[in-house]
Amino acid sequence: MVFLRIIGYNNVLKHMNADHRLSVPQQGKSRIPELKKGDVFLMIKKNRMIGTAVCALITAMTLTACVQVNVNTAEAAAADRESVNQVSLLQGLTFGDYNGSRSAGEVKSMGDIGIGTFDALNGELIMLDGVIYRAAGDGSVEAVDDSETIPFCDVTWFDSDESETITDIQDIASLKEVLDKKVSELGTNRFYFIRIDGKFKEMNVRSELAQTEPYKPLAKVLETDQTFFDYSDIDGTVVGLYCPDYMDRLNAVGWHFHFISDDREKGGHMLDLKFDSGELKWDYTDGFSMILPENEMFSDFDLTVDQSEDIRRVETGDGE
Amino acid sequence: MVFLRIIGYNNVLKHMNADHRLSVPQQGKSRIPELKKGDVFLMIKKNRMIGTAVCALITAMTLTACVQVNVNTAEAAAADRESVNQVSLLQGLTFGDYNGSRSAGEVKSMGDIGIGTFDALNGELIMLDGVIYRAAGDGSVEAVDDSETIPFCDVTWFDSDESETITDIQDIASLKEVLDKKVSELGTNRFYFIRIDGKFKEMNVRSELAQTEPYKPLAKVLETDQTFFDYSDIDGTVVGLYCPDYMDRLNAVGWHFHFISDDREKGGHMLDLKFDSGELKWDYTDGFSMILPENEMFSDFDLTVDQSEDIRRVETGDGE
Repeated sequence: MVFLRIIGYNNVLKHMNADHRLSVPQQGKSRIPELKKGDVFLMIKKNRMIGTAVCALITAMTLTACVQVNVNTAEAAAADRESVNQVSLLQGLTFGDYNGSRSAGEVKSMGDIGIGTFDALNGELIMLDGVIYRAAGDGSVEAVDDSETIPFCDVTWFDSDESETITDIQDIASLKEVLDKKVSELGTNRFYFIRIDGKFKEMNVRSELAQTEPYKPLAKVLETDQTFFDYSDIDGTVVGLYCPDYMDRLNAVGWHFHFISDDREKGGHMLDLKFDSGELKWDYTDGFSMILPENEMFSDFDLTVDQSEDIRRVETGDGE
Repeated sequence: MVFLRIIGYNNVLKHMNADHRLSVPQQGKSRIPELKKGDVFLMIKKNRMIGTAVCALITAMTLTACVQVNVNTAEAAAADRESVNQVSLLQGLTFGDYNGSRSAGEVKSMGDIGIGTFDALNGELIMLDGVIYRAAGDGSVEAVDDSETIPFCDVTWFDSDESETITDIQDIASLKEVLDKKVSELGTNRFYFIRIDGKFKEMNVRSELAQTEPYKPLAKVLETDQTFFDYSDIDGTVVGLYCPDYMDRLNAVGWHFHFISDDREKGGHMLDLKFDSGELKWDYTDGFSMILPENEMFSDFDLTVDQSEDIRRVETGDGE
């Protein structure tokens, strides 16, 4: 029976806000038990220059600093993962605020799957299994540096709540039909992330060319600077987000999909697709968090203007 | 020079999601230093039955479990406090979902100031300096138990970003005029919490009587079950929240005020006021987080219906 256990700091981090979960390279072997109500913790902070032996000595000298945790932190950690975490509003992007406000490194602390775009509208963002990729306007795909900045994205920690094989999807409309049927059963007022892994007979994506300041509104940019790529018999993953109807002024209502190929060489904002069979996984999410950018461009927008038609054109790739 | 320091677990908690910040009664004396990039932590978890001496021994035996924290956690903690944390949608409440979904104890982990209501619509919620009060339908005020549940509220950690004395406020319209002028300078697309401490020549508040299931929509309830209380020359605090225009389907746009007296015996949803001089403090908040309830009533709502007129009546106390 183990009464005393060392746990790594990243176990604490599991219980932190997704916004603040931190990259913690682990040194040495560490046992990571679950936290339980009533557990007592002691945490020692030391200067990195000091050896572990001194650490132990001081620990013994100052053990009266123990504090008691009176809650079920495991529950808190579970809730933490059930949130769609958004940088800015899609409506800020639609107005032309392409100024990256959060780094890719920060966004990685908010989730491991997601969709969005990059500073200067430099390509479509697809996050999958914790890696952030850019599907650029020239059709190329790359994993971005943590210093790359992001003006808009939605990410979450993907926990598969349900999975199923879906078959005979002829186009994006029939995919949405399958997904919407499920949403109407699960509740239309919640958020959902999905991923579909499979071989796609047809995959139609778009990206866009990086912009230079002063930035034009998104619908205007897409009239001239969209690029389209059509692939066939391509293995990859579709990442999708569903937002409830009441989100119509903070994001796009309904489904929004991005795609990336298994070889990580092709991808973009998905406009259409066709496939015989794919593995669909659902992550039901009951929370939503948003971080607003601090730049003046965002502050000065008149977001009372109805942008629904612009949003529709942006989503469908209708540049006309 | 101190190289090694014991820090309490609540110092870690300061860096956690507001949703998950936990009540940590501190035992014994604890030094709480700031965390810095490069600091090394060791955390020991032990069964509460085991004494601190054993804890120290095991610490020495397992020090290889040290992990390194490579980020500025102090920054993360600061960002964490800059979020309006909301339980459910006001529109859920308007439809009649008075089912408490989060406990007062949980809400205390999300902020120390706020407004809302209680399970069964049993009075107006005012949170001030970390205490949650109920201003009940009979005019009485009480601090509630942590087990009390809450169907809707907005809270934050109040950090005063700016304070000023405001004078000669003749009514709620003139107060909003003063506040809106400031909001137009600071940016209308952000969230703001304010508090005004002072002696109020006139203070008009309302509350409502607790409901029984099946619940009626809020506007319907207020036709018959509102209670009004008018006070004069009363010392107390106004707590106010400003939501941007794009929040019109998740909350009430603009200002929403609650009041509580200094003696904690009177309070409610503020309908009007008059005062000569008061201390106004602003907390600018650039984040918004929402936790959706899990009950079926919420899942089944048709939130595509326009509730703006109901929201107006609820806010103004217009029961007709």
